[in-house]
Amino acid sequence: MIENKLSILDEIRTIVGAKYLITKPDLLYKYSKDCTSNKVTIPSAVVLPKNTQEISKIIAICNETKTAITVRGGGTGVSGGALSVNSGIILSLERLNKIIEINKVDRIAIVESGVITKDLKDAVLKDGLNFPQNISSADSCFIGGNVAVSSGSPKSLKYGTTKNYVVNLEVVLPDGRIIWTGKNVSKNATGYNLTQLFSGSEGTLGVITKVVLKLVPPMKELVLMVPFTKIDNLFICVQQFFAKGYSASSIEFIDGVGFKLVSQYLDNSYHIKSTTEGILWIEIEGDYSDKLLDEALKISRHINAYTEEEIHVADNPSEVKALWKMRSKVGEAVINHTFFRDVDIVVPCSKIDEMYKAIVIIANKFNFNYTVFGHVGDGNFHVNIFQNKEQTIEQWEVNIVVWVKEIFLKALELGGTISGEHGIGKINLPYIAEAIPTAQIIMDKIKKTFDKNQIINP
Amino acid sequence: MIENKLSILDEIRTIVGAKYLITKPDLLYKYSKDCTSNKVTIPSAVVLPKNTQEISKIIAICNETKTAITVRGGGTGVSGGALSVNSGIILSLERLNKIIEINKVDRIAIVESGVITKDLKDAVLKDGLNFPQNISSADSCFIGGNVAVSSGSPKSLKYGTTKNYVVNLEVVLPDGRIIWTGKNVSKNATGYNLTQLFSGSEGTLGVITKVVLKLVPPMKELVLMVPFTKIDNLFICVQQFFAKGYSASSIEFIDGVGFKLVSQYLDNSYHIKSTTEGILWIEIEGDYSDKLLDEALKISRHINAYTEEEIHVADNPSEVKALWKMRSKVGEAVINHTFFRDVDIVVPCSKIDEMYKAIVIIANKFNFNYTVFGHVGDGNFHVNIFQNKEQTIEQWEVNIVVWVKEIFLKALELGGTISGEHGIGKINLPYIAEAIPTAQIIMDKIKKTFDKNQIINP
Repeated sequence: MIENKLSILDEIRTIVGAKYLITKPDLLYKYSKDCTSNKVTIPSAVVLPKNTQEISKIIAICNETKTAITVRGGGTGVSGGALSVNSGIILSLERLNKIIEINKVDRIAIVESGVITKDLKDAVLKDGLNFPQNISSADSCFIGGNVAVSSGSPKSLKYGTTKNYVVNLEVVLPDGRIIWTGKNVSKNATGYNLTQLFSGSEGTLGVITKVVLKLVPPMKELVLMVPFTKIDNLFICVQQFFAKGYSASSIEFIDGVGFKLVSQYLDNSYHIKSTTEGILWIEIEGDYSDKLLDEALKISRHINAYTEEEIHVADNPSEVKALWKMRSKVGEAVINHTFFRDVDIVVPCSKIDEMYKAIVIIANKFNFNYTVFGHVGDGNFHVNIFQNKEQTIEQWEVNIVVWVKEIFLKALELGGTISGEHGIGKINLPYIAEAIPTAQIIMDKIKKTFDKNQIINP
Repeated sequence: MIENKLSILDEIRTIVGAKYLITKPDLLYKYSKDCTSNKVTIPSAVVLPKNTQEISKIIAICNETKTAITVRGGGTGVSGGALSVNSGIILSLERLNKIIEINKVDRIAIVESGVITKDLKDAVLKDGLNFPQNISSADSCFIGGNVAVSSGSPKSLKYGTTKNYVVNLEVVLPDGRIIWTGKNVSKNATGYNLTQLFSGSEGTLGVITKVVLKLVPPMKELVLMVPFTKIDNLFICVQQFFAKGYSASSIEFIDGVGFKLVSQYLDNSYHIKSTTEGILWIEIEGDYSDKLLDEALKISRHINAYTEEEIHVADNPSEVKALWKMRSKVGEAVINHTFFRDVDIVVPCSKIDEMYKAIVIIANKFNFNYTVFGHVGDGNFHVNIFQNKEQTIEQWEVNIVVWVKEIFLKALELGGTISGEHGIGKINLPYIAEAIPTAQIIMDKIKKTFDKNQIINP
């Protein structure tokens, strides 16, 4: 029996080697935060195992000694999921960065969970295949983290979130056993769907060590960028787009505040009026350029019923990227502007207009500044509430709980949910009981079924 | 406390009304079998509740009295899942047959779980939408049953199995509580993925009472039907189809035995040589007829490297249906021919040639007759082993366990699984421990977490 934290660390050091157990305060700082603004928690140690077997041994020791451990991917989360609990131990997956196999016949990639998402995308593209999520933090996030929170992206409208592309997972269970949740096949009706139970579980049921992902052939893209003088019309335009039977790979938007922030941040060269209340992006995909243009023409006619502003169109890769820039940089523009809290909600698309109106009313009632942008085709809004500089941090922390709760309650009232793609993490935990009252009882039971001693990401 | 089965039935009769509790032997016979050949189990009673509330009360009584109950949908299963256990009570969902809402903006349908799949498909088509599974038993199976086993279909190559289209479920838990597993939104990162845990759980975790399904716009279809003189070339043709970057909505096949059986059964009018060892169907989808024809031409060139026989092409709905007929009727042709056992396996597409060769070797070793057909693009084979008429039923029952096991072991060795789309049910239960050794321990725990008294579909 191991007696105390020091001897636990000695055990772990024996497993990974002294070089890969970090305990020096100056080196620990890097692991003290993720992209959740304001949150800093210095862990007592960070362990960097090189493979599944090492992780299995580490987790077994933690289980035996009831030591909490927090799994960390790329540290790009915005819900505080990668932060240590009570200055505990962090297990970083950064050395599990091997792409094991890309199979063109089976259209799968088998990778370790610490592979950076962009590296995966680049590698499969060389084989004429695509991992069709364009996650905004792809340059630094880990594929294992994407799976753990089932990350979404603008492409989720067509392709769903990451979980839809997860075929199989290697997982270290909280008692140290190593399992595969499924098989590397596209259809499997053998027993419960453990693969999907682990996808989106935020690492609370085990440590994801290998991921088998489904791949698809890449497609040609065409993007329309459309300013709206009246933002209400933007929402109706999107709802009617679906009602009329159109389809798209992405439908995204930013509101007027987001537009102004990102214009200043980027020195925007598109001639969009400063009175614009919202900008809509519609991206369509296909195998044939001529048909994409035909489709764009039909969609433009539909859009013209809701706005008189000029529609910008791009259909070659560099122009497509340029036209997306305002949307893709709005998050950075907000970070550059002020401290904020991201509130990630989803409502049915038929309720996006009502949800937006409710946000405006709530903001007026509490007098906070904010911008709303996001994946409007999926009904997924990011409400970024700006920190009021006249308030102390303490006041802000008290107020934000009230404001977020009001937004969450409205989303729930409209049949929506309180996290579309960022997960619950720690910062949304106080709200989950209200979001999923009965379901929570079951989730607690499932967590205990897997992790009796509550050691992994507690 | 209820003392015995008679008083339990009295309680249930009070809930549903005398008309909807069947106990007369002649009326019970209808509920004594599903499509699993040879299996007949007469239940002691069949209850036909009209809504979720009645089911909740019935399940609560069963839980209190530890009475086993088996949920029955359309009775089209082929794994014995709808058969009662120890002549127990069957809960039939046939009266839960309302289509509650079809929402064109959100592209979802909200239905009761006893709606017949074809009725759902027809209803959404009127609104210009599609539930893209073409399940072969759609005329009689229930959507709740499709969800419970995550039914596949020829379209699963493109669209995945039913679970990929399940947005939200209303479920009566084994203690009688009613929950929704999610929300009616396309993205949800709030907590564990209960919706996917219940999809494919074969009703073992609760009774699915309402289903919210994602819908898509319908597309134009083009089908190529291709005979192969050498079946080995058929498999390589499929593997190279993917390797070269082609995509399809369905890739299906039947072997030479299946071809002969279905030709006799249908009085086949296509001029296909009797020496043909296999027939391949490739279906592609798109929005534009001209582009489908271009694509078909490219695919035909690819196919010509592997067979010299004539390629049959169809691109209007009635011809498409006619060309699919041999494939879609092969199951019926087999039922018409003899008693058989369907062995449903999936291997990675890169292993279909090896799997097929192994089946031939196993059949020769044990000297049984069979046909193989199925969803070859997904690596999903249905091996139908014919009952040897020179054997007694008892001998057949002993032999089939050995033969199936040999096939399953080969599929597992090739990284495959022992049920692609029919579920485990009762007939495959003896094999699950070998298919998923570690995972089974977890599944047992999950089952107990939900259903402590093991009352639902035990």
